[in-house]
Parts: sequence; structure tokens; C-alpha cells
Amino acid sequence: MKVGILGVTGNAGAELARLLLKHPEFELSEVSGRSEAGKKMVDVFPYLHQYELTIQPEIGEADLFFSALPHKSSAEVCGPLVKRGKKVVDLSADFRLSDRAVYEETYQVTHPHPELLEKAVYGLPELRGPEVAATSLVGNPGCYPTASVLALAPAICAGLASPRIIIDAKSGVSGAGRTPTMTTNYIEINENTHAYSVDGHRHEPEIVQELDRLRPRGIKPIQTTFVPHLVPMTRGILANCYTAAIQQVNQAQLFELYREFYRDKLFVQVVERPPETKWTYGNNMVYVMPHYHERSANLILMAAEDNLGKGAAGQAIQNANLMCGLPEELGLDIGAVYP
Amino acid sequence: MKVGILGVTGNAGAELARLLLKHPEFELSEVSGRSEAGKKMVDVFPYLHQYELTIQPEIGEADLFFSALPHKSSAEVCGPLVKRGKKVVDLSADFRLSDRAVYEETYQVTHPHPELLEKAVYGLPELRGPEVAATSLVGNPGCYPTASVLALAPAICAGLASPRIIIDAKSGVSGAGRTPTMTTNYIEINENTHAYSVDGHRHEPEIVQELDRLRPRGIKPIQTTFVPHLVPMTRGILANCYTAAIQQVNQAQLFELYREFYRDKLFVQVVERPPETKWTYGNNMVYVMPHYHERSANLILMAAEDNLGKGAAGQAIQNANLMCGLPEELGLDIGAVYP
Amino acid sequence: MKVGILGVTGNAGAELARLLLKHPEFELSEVSGRSEAGKKMVDVFPYLHQYELTIQPEIGEADLFFSALPHKSSAEVCGPLVKRGKKVVDLSADFRLSDRAVYEETYQVTHPHPELLEKAVYGLPELRGPEVAATSLVGNPGCYPTASVLALAPAICAGLASPRIIIDAKSGVSGAGRTPTMTTNYIEINENTHAYSVDGHRHEPEIVQELDRLRPRGIKPIQTTFVPHLVPMTRGILANCYTAAIQQVNQAQLFELYREFYRDKLFVQVVERPPETKWTYGNNMVYVMPHYHERSANLILMAAEDNLGKGAAGQAIQNANLMCGLPEELGLDIGAVYP
Amino acid sequence: MKVGILGVTGNAGAELARLLLKHPEFELSEVSGRSEAGKKMVDVFPYLHQYELTIQPEIGEADLFFSALPHKSSAEVCGPLVKRGKKVVDLSADFRLSDRAVYEETYQVTHPHPELLEKAVYGLPELRGPEVAATSLVGNPGCYPTASVLALAPAICAGLASPRIIIDAKSGVSGAGRTPTMTTNYIEINENTHAYSVDGHRHEPEIVQELDRLRPRGIKPIQTTFVPHLVPMTRGILANCYTAAIQQVNQAQLFELYREFYRDKLFVQVVERPPETKWTYGNNMVYVMPHYHERSANLILMAAEDNLGKGAAGQAIQNANLMCGLPEELGLDIGAVYP
Repeated sequence: MKVGILGVTGNAGAELARLLLKHPEFELSEVSGRSEAGKKMVDVFPYLHQYELTIQPEIGEADLFFSALPHKSSAEVCGPLVKRGKKVVDLSADFRLSDRAVYEETYQVTHPHPELLEKAVYGLPELRGPEVAATSLVGNPGCYPTASVLALAPAICAGLASPRIIIDAKSGVSGAGRTPTMTTNYIEINENTHAYSVDGHRHEPEIVQELDRLRPRGIKPIQTTFVPHLVPMTRGILANCYTAAIQQVNQAQLFELYREFYRDKLFVQVVERPPETKWTYGNNMVYVMPHYHERSANLILMAAEDNLGKGAAGQAIQNANLMCGLPEELGLDIGAVYP
Repeated sequence: MKVGILGVTGNAGAELARLLLKHPEFELSEVSGRSEAGKKMVDVFPYLHQYELTIQPEIGEADLFFSALPHKSSAEVCGPLVKRGKKVVDLSADFRLSDRAVYEETYQVTHPHPELLEKAVYGLPELRGPEVAATSLVGNPGCYPTASVLALAPAICAGLASPRIIIDAKSGVSGAGRTPTMTTNYIEINENTHAYSVDGHRHEPEIVQELDRLRPRGIKPIQTTFVPHLVPMTRGILANCYTAAIQQVNQAQLFELYREFYRDKLFVQVVERPPETKWTYGNNMVYVMPHYHERSANLILMAAEDNLGKGAAGQAIQNANLMCGLPEELGLDIGAVYP
Repeated sequence: MKVGILGVTGNAGAELARLLLKHPEFELSEVSGRSEAGKKMVDVFPYLHQYELTIQPEIGEADLFFSALPHKSSAEVCGPLVKRGKKVVDLSADFRLSDRAVYEETYQVTHPHPELLEKAVYGLPELRGPEVAATSLVGNPGCYPTASVLALAPAICAGLASPRIIIDAKSGVSGAGRTPTMTTNYIEINENTHAYSVDGHRHEPEIVQELDRLRPRGIKPIQTTFVPHLVPMTRGILANCYTAAIQQVNQAQLFELYREFYRDKLFVQVVERPPETKWTYGNNMVYVMPHYHERSANLILMAAEDNLGKGAAGQAIQNANLMCGLPEELGLDIGAVYP
Repeated sequence: MKVGILGVTGNAGAELARLLLKHPEFELSEVSGRSEAGKKMVDVFPYLHQYELTIQPEIGEADLFFSALPHKSSAEVCGPLVKRGKKVVDLSADFRLSDRAVYEETYQVTHPHPELLEKAVYGLPELRGPEVAATSLVGNPGCYPTASVLALAPAICAGLASPRIIIDAKSGVSGAGRTPTMTTNYIEINENTHAYSVDGHRHEPEIVQELDRLRPRGIKPIQTTFVPHLVPMTRGILANCYTAAIQQVNQAQLFELYREFYRDKLFVQVVERPPETKWTYGNNMVYVMPHYHERSANLILMAAEDNLGKGAAGQAIQNANLMCGLPEELGLDIGAVYP
């Protein structure tokens, strides 16, 4: 099947191109990217020299499209493609939030295609697999929400966790995009760690939306305090979620709950020691450790992923596989490039 | 004044030696270090070639000693020195906890000199300056407690913060000591971030001890959920403390409270954007940002320091300065080696 | 086909296990590793959790073995396997040097199976492909020699390069093995670069051996000044080779010579800008740039590779593919995990 | 004495400001920086919060100026200052090359003040101390030339080294300036090493100029093949110089030659193991190791420095100290921030 990448020149776009090199069913047949249009792929990405494609200003021939365009631009381009019957996995935020008002307030733009929001599925296959398989438009989750929601889902579902949740998340620098900025310059971020967006990050409404769908009747709405950090590494997100246990539980029961919840989920592994981001380098895994902190009766729910893998491009391919009736793991790695 | 370093071969010992190169009043006259005894300083630390000292198995002639020995060994060596009238700044945990039982349970050893615990002062000069100045035995705080306590102190003192506190702390690798281990090997920790000791870290009782001293009547005992992390950098600690505001407050009042609390404290700077560990590289500063998260009514209290500076050797020299009647900043840097 | 890994617990052994996860023809059926014998693979390598293997003290059932054991131990174990008709790719130095005396002087040990040296083929498939395909015992090249020989081979073969060669090579830390040492400890090597073994590195005789085979009649024996460096990265080798041009040449001719030499070699890409080690992260590529420095009439011949990929485990699988009559690229990546 | 910094917003300018915090005789009284003019120092450099200065578009009141402006702009600003009797240390290339034609060809600009070239002294105090002390205009050496010339000087002076020299130099990223670019973006350079400017770097003529001054009669002009590299670290340069020994020498004689040459030079330390860039982190040292490679009769001459320290701002202060009749080491560190 022919696939195209819209916006190949960013980090998620390039990671999609890398993963598609190894995909047995998808053939990358066209790529777009405004800033580098006209250049050959090999000139922009020397490590992807196998592709003989030239970056186009616009594309539209393939059967399925991954969009790694910025929000709003993405919906503008994806809308017509969907209407022409193409399958689309949109890695921007445009089709993640089902409530148009929340989207417009969060991103401070007018949604170009609100009529498609109903059709769009939030592409977290471990929670929404059948819906993904049945749609032609997926809003691919953000990197932080993927880790955070997967860390919290079993405890929220079981009514075990208080809806007042603190999420302290640490991200590698590739999450900030490929364009150089003062914040992402080597000399500024090497040997440095700091928080940012302490007053609210755009990914927070996604987390709330997905967890609210899972909370049992009688549990109050989810309320998050989400603090993202930049740490000096290229790839990787570690999300630590803290919340009070609101039922009696012990560590063994907690592990059992999580193992049961993710039984048969190939890309989520429940582990008994704090997960390390490096275990996910270059693959499509999320490692989750639920911990019951006895003295405080708090839950510490940790998840590690590659922000470009399960947090972006890997998950996009997992979604595309499902949308095409293929095994979800096709072309995706489980082993990490470690050390 | 002649000073000695017990255990110069670890990270804190070496940092003490580096700082003493520039101290106008303290002259490093002797150093000990069992593993490297007999070697010249320059052979172990080529970047400290100015010292012509040889590492001794034991020392005891100087007027003031910094001990960077492991816990228990440290008290065994420092006890007799104190009794001989020497001033001692102990960087181990041996004289930090005033309650012998807490110490012995935390470190799983018998205290070699419990009779000195009463004399010992917890050496956090911003909170205990006059006591430090009056004693001859200081228990120099741990790296995590220094950042955590300074981040929380004003809010706890003011009765503004709930005593149920979550601390998510990130540390550079030098905090794990100078001896190579699998955890601290470059290829394991580079491009990696993970939590450790999620069930309780030895520094936690110090944090509780110091905050409990500050809480107003009527506030329940402090109860922490402390989760330390290793991030891929050499130096630096960022401690993020989360707790509910239990009084009405706004952001402006919170800044004002913190600025007032740390007025005249040269080494604590209250800032209005998330502090970065790199601002403290090689110096003796702590940067603190208190943030009021309106939607959740939570406080996010952040502090950044160099774990070997204000978190260990720098603070030890600050304490020694006070104990000797010198200006507390003597020989210490405020500017960071940045970038 | 069933394959085994001898010494799975080092970096090359673990990389072999990672690559074999994706190999369509080789099934990893047994692994050995003395230090961790008795443990499950997942307990030592959490990011390889798909394997249900237990690490054995000894193995011998598979059809083909990769040995990542230390030199001498490796030949002791591989010798009997070869004699029992097994195919062996030995990643140690034991079967790289065809001259027993050179081996014994370089490694300061007695060769356990000198009688096998004649059978052994130096496994650099781009230069020795047919020989590799015909043997059952391959001495897999060292990481530095792979890059250095591939950078120099075309110029040496053509009689263009003086045999007096300076090689300034930079390696990531994983080349130093998985066992923690002071040199490889994060805090020592991060933000650090230095040379080592300036008086001679064990890989030098391999480089001389292979280049001497290529030099035309009339060119004097190869004489190298090889200086390896450690740079603060996990993976990657960059070898810069400097030598005088001894024939007239220009840049265009030099490119043409190299392109022609490596035509049809899938894993060697000749490029026109200085190759970057990151282009090879996790893959089996070598990027080579030959440069003619006009003012000095020197050749600057550069090659970049992943020291664990083409420099070790990837090349071992490439060799094994050839030994088994499979396409050499089976199971190996060309795209890099970048950024 | 009042000093000013022209162009404080780059890496060298900020390092000057950091070092001046600790200088006992120089008081930083004014700073300029076009891009950030009007801002307070603390808003641009939070880790330099002690300064209450505002960045000005232009300055001119101080007695001595450090210029960290770009080449050409620097001479335009410094020229009038020198003519008004101010002392100037220019960190740009404008007053390094005594031959106007070489400067203009190298930098492809017209020199704004060629009439000052005669007055200007190349500020490498270990080789030109008395000249520096006697002038009011110093061209502060480039980072690569400082390390390269100091590594080579004793061997060239003694007529021991062939004038055909290969220099393979490795630099941390701060040498590329403070402005973010694709090359210096964290995700591009972390875990990466590569050469650049293989056909000629602007620093090469300085190296040739200074070494040509030192070569004995009868030795042919210096001819360099200089290849700079970017390695993933913030600070540090390692320059490895390779050349043939043209006299008989042994290792002991070589050490003796170097030790004698640098006797009494506080900031050059001759060492017997390969120097590490980290030994110079934040200080003003150069560590030099001369090595005689017996088999090839080559000299391997290595030098490590902090590119912002002895390679830029530290050396500028050393020069300013000499120009003002102060001890050259005033305000400069010898101990490194290590680890």
C-alpha cells in the first residue's frame, strides 16, 4: 500500500520515514515539506539515503497519509484528503480533542474542519483499538498523553485512584521539534534540567479527556497538575503520576491489576522496577510500573517511552496498521537500541 | 587556618579540595583517603596539580576538618577530633538526624558517638545560621534535603502548605559517588532517565525533621512521598515539591512571601521562571521558584542547585566560614560555569 | 536456523541479541554468559523482554555461534565447536590475525588453537566476501579496523596513498565494554575527550595486515601511527586517516575511485561531506568520505560507523548471513535511529 | 579599574562577565550587545544575577575593553577606542594576523583599521608576554590556535619537528557560538562526532603565522593540514598534532624539552599521560603532552584547554592583567570544575 508523509522534515516526519524503510506492507511513495521542498530526501537526511524521493510542496496520490504538519495546517491539509476517501493518521493535535471548544481554547485557533471531529478517533490502540480499526481518521496522541494515560488508565478504571492527579513528566529534547531554538541549543540544555509550562501545557486536555472516559461512575472529574521538564537527552519520556489511593490496595494487587489490564497488549510491558527511558530507545514500547507507597497511601504510576516512537511516529504506524487490517506490530521494533 | 579533608578521594572530597584552592583563609594542609593513601594528589586528580600534598591514611593536625567519609566511618573518625577540640563539618549523614533511633533505623548501623548528637547542628545556614556559628560540629545536609527544604520552608513556615508533600527530585550522576557502578556507567545512564528508591530514600528523614521544626502549631506532621531520579548530567539537582495550598494565596503573595523569607540570603535567589540546574554549575547557589497552580490550588515549589556545591562541598565551606567567624561567602562562587 | 551467542552479557553480545530479534532466518536458541549464568535474559536486559531464554554457563546445540567472549577464552570455546562442524563467527581477536606470532605478541597469550588460523577468514565482507561465504570460521574485525581499513582500502589499492599513515580515531564509550571502570564512569567521560594507548593499540596489527594485502607491488609496507580517543557518546566511531598522495589526483577522481570501489556494496556509502557518526546509530552502515587536501597534497580519508553495528555485531550477522548463503543484509538496518 | 565588554551576549562575552565577577582589580562597569540592548544582564543571564548592569547599544567610558564582537565589527568599534587611549583586548580575529592581505583573504572583508595592525600584539602570553605587557591593543588568539601553537611551539623552536604538520582538533559545541543553528542543536550533535571545514579553517593562518616566527633558520615554512571536529560536549578543545621528528630524540628528552620551555608558565602544564579536556573545565589551563612514537618516528603533540577559558575569555583576562601591570593569573582559576 502506498503511503505519504505530510511534513517529513520535522522529527516525527523523519522518524516515520525511518520506520517505513522497514515496513513490509507500506511503501513510502511521496513526501511533502514546505521548508525543504525541491530537495532530495538524502540531502536533508543523509542517514535515509535509500529513499530516492524528492520532497514535494504538496502531495495527494497515496492511499494513506501520515501528517506531521503543525496544528491547524494539518487539519487544513488532512480534511480534503479524508473527504477524498484517503486514510489519515494526523500526528498534530487537530483531531485529538473531541470537543471543538476545548481545542480552540487550547490552541487559540479556529478549527478548519470541525465537521470531521465526530469521525476522528483518538489513536491510543491499547484503549481504543476497535475504534481505530474502524475509522479512516485518527488523531494520533501527544507524547506526554501516551505515557501519562497508559500509566494511569488501569488505576482510574478500577476506581482505585483519586481524580486529583499530579504528573511530573521528563522529556528528551527531540520533543521540542527539529527547528533550532535557544532552549534546544546543545550548550543550553546539555548538563541542564528544568521545568517549563508550569501553568498548563497543551497536552493536558488530552490527558483529562481520555481519563475522564475511563473513570467509574461516582468518581469526580479528573483534575491534573501537569509539569513537563526538559532533560538532557535526545529521546525518551518518563511520566511519573502521583495520586492518592482511594481504595485499600497492596503492591501485589496493584501489579495484578496492571498485568491483567495490559494482558495481550504487545507494546505495554508492566515491570517491577522503575522503568528507564533507554529501554525504549528507537522502539514502540511503553514500560509501566505501578507502585503503592504505603506510608502515604499514594500511588506512584510511572511510564517510559520513546517520545518519537510510541509517543509519535511508532504509534502512528501502529494505528495505520490497525486501520488497514494489518497486525498492529508490523514494521515496529520491540527491542531497544541499548546501550 | 589549617584545614584537613577526611576522605578526599570521593566526589565531595575532591570538590572541597577544588574550592579550597581559592579560599583566602583556609589552607588545605592534610588530606586522607584510604583507597589511595600514599599517592600524591596530582596523581589522583590531575586537574588539582597545584597541591603538593600526599594522601595520608590518617590525619589530625589541622584546626578544622571536613569529613567526606562514608556514614558510620565518618562519626568514628570525627568523634575523637571533636573531643580534641577540633572543628568538624561532617558531610556524611552521621550528625544530621538528631534522633538516634531514626538514624539507626535509616542507616541500619549503631551510631558510634550518640553522645555528640546534642552538640551537632544541622548545617543549613539559611535556616540555622546562628546555631552553626556557635557550634564546633556540623552535620552537613544531604544534597536532596538542601534543595527540598529550601523550596518548602517559606510555605511550611507560613502555614500555607499542606503537610502531605510529594517531592519529585532529579539528580545528576555525581550524587551517586565516584566509584564506578553499572548504574553510573556512561553507556547505561547517558540518554536515560529513571526513578530509583521509590519506596524510601535515606534523605527523607532529614527533610521531615527540618520541615517539622518549621511547621506552625496546628499543622499535622509532615508526610513526604519522595521519589529521586537519575538524569544524564554530571552535576545538578532539581527538586519539585507538590502540595495543596491550605490557605488562600495568589502568585504575587507567594513571591512576596518567598522573597521576604530569603531577603539577605546571598545563596538563595527567588526567581520568576522555572530554575535550571545549569545556573548553579560549580557555584553555591540555590534558585527557588514558588508557583501557585490555580486550577488545582496546588503549590509547585521548585529548587535547583549543584549537588556538589550547595548540596555538599560548597555548603560545607559556608558552614565552616560561619563556624570560624568569617563571612559565609568566603571562597565561594555565585556565578555559574555556563554554558 | 538455530544460533547461539557465547558471552551474551557484554555490549557486543547484547547487540547481537537485539539484532537477532528481527532476523527472519536465525533463531536465537541459546545464550551463555559466565557472570550472569542462571539468570533470565529479561532480568539482565529488560529491553529484550521478548526472549524467554535463560543464560547458560555453557552452550553447544545451535548450528551457528557468535562468540563475544574475551580473547583466548573465545578460541578455547570456539575451537571445539568448529571441530564439531559448527559455523562460528568470533568477535574476539583470536581469529583475526593470520600470523600466530603477531597475535601472541599483541595479546600476550598463547593461542589455544593455532591450527585453526589457516581456516579462519578475516570477516570484512566488502573486501573478503567470497572467502567469508566459503568458510565456517570467521574472525570478525575490530571496530577501529573496520572503519580504518574501509576508509583507506581504495586509495591503498590504487597505489595512490603513501604507506606512512596517521589514523586519528574517535570512539564512543560502548567500545570499552560493559563492565564499569573509572574511565567509563559517566562523571569522568561526560564533557570530556582524550586520547589513550598512544603508544600502540591492539587493533593496529589488524589494520596493517589487511592494508598490506591490498598494497600494490612496489609500495613499501604499511606503517601506521594510530591514536584512539574516547569521546562522550555511547556509540560511534569516526576514523580520520591522513597520508600523503603519491600520485597526482584531484577531488573528482578521488570520489570516482571510491564510488567505483564500493559500487554494489550496500553497507558502504561514499559521501561528499564529512560523515557523522550519528548517521550510523543502530545500523550496519559505514559512511566514507575521501578528501584531497590540495595545499598539502595530503589525503584525508574519513569513515564513520556504529562501533557496535558494522564495528561488531552487525558485521558479525552480515558474515553469518554470507556463511549461510543468505543475502548479506538480512535482518540488518540501513536507516539510522536519528536523531 | 573599570572595564567594559563589547558584545557581552555571545559565549565569550558571557564568560568574560562570569570571570570578572571574581576579579579583584577589574570592575565591570558597562556592557554592550546589540541584539539584547536595553535588557538587564540578569534577564539574559540568570546565573549572573549579581550584575545590576543594563546592556547598552554602545559603550566607551571604561579604561579597558574586551571586545567579543564579530570580526570586522570589532575592529570598527575598537579602532576609535584605541585611538582615544583605551586599552583593548579584541577576541575577534581582527588584530591577530599581522599581514593585512592574509586577513582580508581569510575573512573576505576589508580591514577597517589596518593602520593599527602594527601596534597590535598576538596575545599568547606564554610566547609573547613582554610584548603584550607593552601594548594597548591585543589580538586575542583563536581557540584552536592557542592549543595547537602551545602543543607545537617547543618542538618547532628546537628544530625537532618537520614543518609538515597534521592537526586533528576536537572542539566542544560552545566554540560555535551562542546563536542556535541546526549544527549546534542538541538533537543533532548529541551522540555525534564529525569533522568540518576540511578544506581550510579560518584559524589556520594564525597557527602558521605564530609557528613560522618560531622555526629555526633552515627549516622550511610551516605547512598545516588542519581538520577541526565537533564533539558532543559544551566546553573543551583537544588538539592532536602529528609531525615527523627530524632529529634524533627519545621520550625523556622530549619531556625535558617541553618542561624547560614551559618552566614558570603557570597556565601550561606538561603531563605524562594524554591530557583530558575535562581537566580544564572552567579554568585557564592548557595541559600539554608531547609523545614520541618510536615505530614511526613521529611526534604526537597533544594539548587540551577550555575553549572559552584559555581559548578565549580566560586568556583575554590574562592579557589584560599583563597590559595593566598586574599578575597574569589575577582572577583566573587553575583548578577545574571536575567532575
